[in-house]
Amino acid sequence: MYKQRGVLVVFSGPSGCGKGTVLKRVMEKNENIFLSVSATTRAPRNEDTDGVTYHFITQEQFQKLIAEDGMLEYAEYCGNYYGTPRKAVLDRLEAGYDVVLEIEVQGALQVKKKFPEAVMIFLLPPSIEELARRLTDRRTEDDGTIRKRMKTAISEMQQAPQYDYMLINDSIEETAQRFAAIISAERSKASRMKERIGEVLYDA
Amino acid sequence: MYKQRGVLVVFSGPSGCGKGTVLKRVMEKNENIFLSVSATTRAPRNEDTDGVTYHFITQEQFQKLIAEDGMLEYAEYCGNYYGTPRKAVLDRLEAGYDVVLEIEVQGALQVKKKFPEAVMIFLLPPSIEELARRLTDRRTEDDGTIRKRMKTAISEMQQAPQYDYMLINDSIEETAQRFAAIISAERSKASRMKERIGEVLYDA
Repeated sequence: MYKQRGVLVVFSGPSGCGKGTVLKRVMEKNENIFLSVSATTRAPRNEDTDGVTYHFITQEQFQKLIAEDGMLEYAEYCGNYYGTPRKAVLDRLEAGYDVVLEIEVQGALQVKKKFPEAVMIFLLPPSIEELARRLTDRRTEDDGTIRKRMKTAISEMQQAPQYDYMLINDSIEETAQRFAAIISAERSKASRMKERIGEVLYDA
Repeated sequence: MYKQRGVLVVFSGPSGCGKGTVLKRVMEKNENIFLSVSATTRAPRNEDTDGVTYHFITQEQFQKLIAEDGMLEYAEYCGNYYGTPRKAVLDRLEAGYDVVLEIEVQGALQVKKKFPEAVMIFLLPPSIEELARRLTDRRTEDDGTIRKRMKTAISEMQQAPQYDYMLINDSIEETAQRFAAIISAERSKASRMKERIGEVLYDA
């Protein structure tokens, strides 16, 4: 029987909107979903585990991957590279698993260009006030820094209409359900079902 | 707060593939979904209840609705008209309910033309043999009639790629879940969320 290819999901949203918590809940309830681990050239910190928080690779290895078109997307921040190695993602998809990339808007748009069937989901906070509250609660930064974070968050959120789907994170449980529903629906798309219908129609 | 408009679902599939059973299960679990009741000019039969199996109307009333563009789709079979009155459907959608039209392929394509945001779902049997078995089991017709029904079913199924989604009815429970997931995902589409994001971004 034909094994359906997995769905590649690109998941973005401003800092503080709850992406990590939603993903954790989605993955607890769906064993078929993998979270892609980014590669980076930055030095590991105490909280890091190689292969879990990031794949830590050298500048040379990273450059080689870029040159071989081995990165689905990448960016440079403060002199360090961050990116999504293509092979690990494509292997999982071929094996029928759904793969989630939790990445920034710029990287997300790179992926969509290279991989048009990627499903783009943007997570929004329930309101601007709620986002401000979450950023204030969890940070020890001064007001100026929080204002700057809010400005960044708002400009990121203005990119949301470029995504295929938007989720408003008013409840983790419901947002996780809607996230899983998107993957299920995408798997039922006629464009992804063509081989299955061939099987049904021509198996006689 | 902005109340999101409902999703219009057009649901088709060959006779014997289990559309009715799937819909029944979907509606048991989702109170927000309404099944549209078609109008017809044919005479009621014993098993009919006006407003439940069909809205029974006169030839004149039906012609008037067509003339006023009051039908989302219609067709004539054996001298009788069958169609979907537009107003009842649009009123429900405006009120935020999802509405399902269980109609034939030709009518479905008419709806898509008038209402491009309609979500088209095609239900397939798990295999041609299974469909043949279901048609044979429940019918008392002779082999020739069953062969004719199978031929019709196969030609209908060849229209499935014109739909947005395809579901293979291998299990009623899973098919009903996938059906509900499609509605959930459609409600999260960026195109349907624009007003909500306006609310989030500009409520401050």
